[in-house]
Amino acid sequence: MAKTNLYVLGSGIYSGLHLSIETVQALRACQTVFLLHDDKMVFEAIKEFCSDVRDLLELYQDTQKERRQIYIEVADRVVNECKTGKTVALMVHGNPMFLVSACEYTIEFAREQGLNAKVLPAISSFDTILCDLEIDLGYGVQIFDPESMIANDWTPNPKVPLLLFQLAQFRNAFLIKVPPKSLSLAPLSKWLCQFYPPDHQCKLLHSGAHILENGTKLNVSLKELCHHQDLDLGNRPTLYVPSID
Amino acid sequence: MAKTNLYVLGSGIYSGLHLSIETVQALRACQTVFLLHDDKMVFEAIKEFCSDVRDLLELYQDTQKERRQIYIEVADRVVNECKTGKTVALMVHGNPMFLVSACEYTIEFAREQGLNAKVLPAISSFDTILCDLEIDLGYGVQIFDPESMIANDWTPNPKVPLLLFQLAQFRNAFLIKVPPKSLSLAPLSKWLCQFYPPDHQCKLLHSGAHILENGTKLNVSLKELCHHQDLDLGNRPTLYVPSID
Repeated sequence: MAKTNLYVLGSGIYSGLHLSIETVQALRACQTVFLLHDDKMVFEAIKEFCSDVRDLLELYQDTQKERRQIYIEVADRVVNECKTGKTVALMVHGNPMFLVSACEYTIEFAREQGLNAKVLPAISSFDTILCDLEIDLGYGVQIFDPESMIANDWTPNPKVPLLLFQLAQFRNAFLIKVPPKSLSLAPLSKWLCQFYPPDHQCKLLHSGAHILENGTKLNVSLKELCHHQDLDLGNRPTLYVPSID
Repeated sequence: MAKTNLYVLGSGIYSGLHLSIETVQALRACQTVFLLHDDKMVFEAIKEFCSDVRDLLELYQDTQKERRQIYIEVADRVVNECKTGKTVALMVHGNPMFLVSACEYTIEFAREQGLNAKVLPAISSFDTILCDLEIDLGYGVQIFDPESMIANDWTPNPKVPLLLFQLAQFRNAFLIKVPPKSLSLAPLSKWLCQFYPPDHQCKLLHSGAHILENGTKLNVSLKELCHHQDLDLGNRPTLYVPSID
C-alpha cells in the first residue's frame, strides 16, 4: 500500500470535542495541517497533535471573491505543500465529504498530481441534527442544499421528511460577511409552497458548534420563513420540514 | 440544569477508533455502560473509561425473537439500572439516532420515568459511505430503509441520488443469524425497477467496521441485485443508486 501523502479530515461539529481517535492519529502523522475552521479552540486542540498548523481563514478576507474561488485557492495551497514530499492534512468543520466543496477540489487536485489522498469520516451536521431533534430520520429522509434543489428542479416528496442545509448561502455565491436577512429565503419559501401548505410547521435548527454555545430550535411555518425576525441565518441553521401525513 | 442520568452514545463505525473526545468524557462520567456492539475491541476500548461495562449481546441468543422485542428488552434493562440512581450509558454502533431503534425506545422509556437523558452524536454509516464513495452527496440525497420505503410507498425521485440502508433486515423482523441470500431482495429490485431502468448501475458499499477490515464496493445493476452471488448481505451493506441524468 502506498504511503498516504494527504489526509482530508473533519473536526466534527462541536468545537474540538468531536475529534475521533482515528483523526487524532492522522493529525499526529502529519508534518503540516491546514485548518479551515472559525473556532480558535480547534486550532489550539490540533496544535497538541501537530506543531505546524496553518490557519486558512486569511483566504476569507477578500469579500469580493466568489466562494468557489476560495475553495480552489485552499486546494492549491494544500496540494502545493503536499508536493514538497510532506505528509499534509486539510481539516475542515463537520464531515469532509458533507457540504465542503474545498475538500472535493483538494482530492481532485491531489489525484491529478499523483498524490495518495485519504478521506476520513467525521461527525456531520446531519448527525448532530438527528440528536438535537431526537428523531431517527434514517428510515426515510431527503437532504438538500436549497440552491441545488431549485437549480436541478429536484422535487421533494412531501410524504418523506426533508432537511435543508446551507440556508445562509442561498442565492449568494460570495462570502457571507453580514448574515443575510430572512427575506433572502423568499424564493425558497415560494418554491416549497408548491408542495406543502403555506402554514406547514417546520423547525429551524442550529447545533451548538462552540463550547458553551447551546443549540437552538425555532418553530416556523413555510410562509413565515422569509418574514421571521429571529431566523439568525448567520448561525448556518438547517430547516427541518416534517412530512405531510 | 438537571444532572444527566442517561447518556445515549455511539461508537461510530470503525471499531473503537471513531470514539470522539466528547463521547469518551461521557463514558468517564458513567458508573455503568451497556454496550450493544459485536466488536470485542470496542468492549476493551470502553473498559479504559468505565470499569463496569455490560455486554448486551446475550439478549441476541434467542433467534426466535423479533428484533423489536430485543430492543425493548435493551431499553428496559438500561432504564432499570438508571432508576437505581446511577449515571448510565447505552452505547451502540454508529450514530445512536441513525437506524438504531433500541436508542429511541431507551429515550422514550427514560423520559416516562422522569429521567434526564442526553443523546450525543457519533459518526454514522452515512458519514463513512460518503468518504468511501468520495462523493459529497450533501447537495441532494434520499436516504431510505427499504422496508419503510415500500411499506409507506415513499416514491424515490430518480433525478436525486439514493442510499438504501439495512438491506439485510429487508422482509425479516427476526434476528439475522444466517446472512440472507440475495434472492431476498427480489421484491426490492422489482419495486425500484418501477422508477429506474433494470440495467441501472448501482454500487453495493460496505464500510470497514473492524480493525484490519477494508471496505468493499461492488458494481451491480438493479436487475442483478437479487441474483448476484457476491452480495454478502451479512456485512450489512448499503446500496448506492446514482441519479438518472
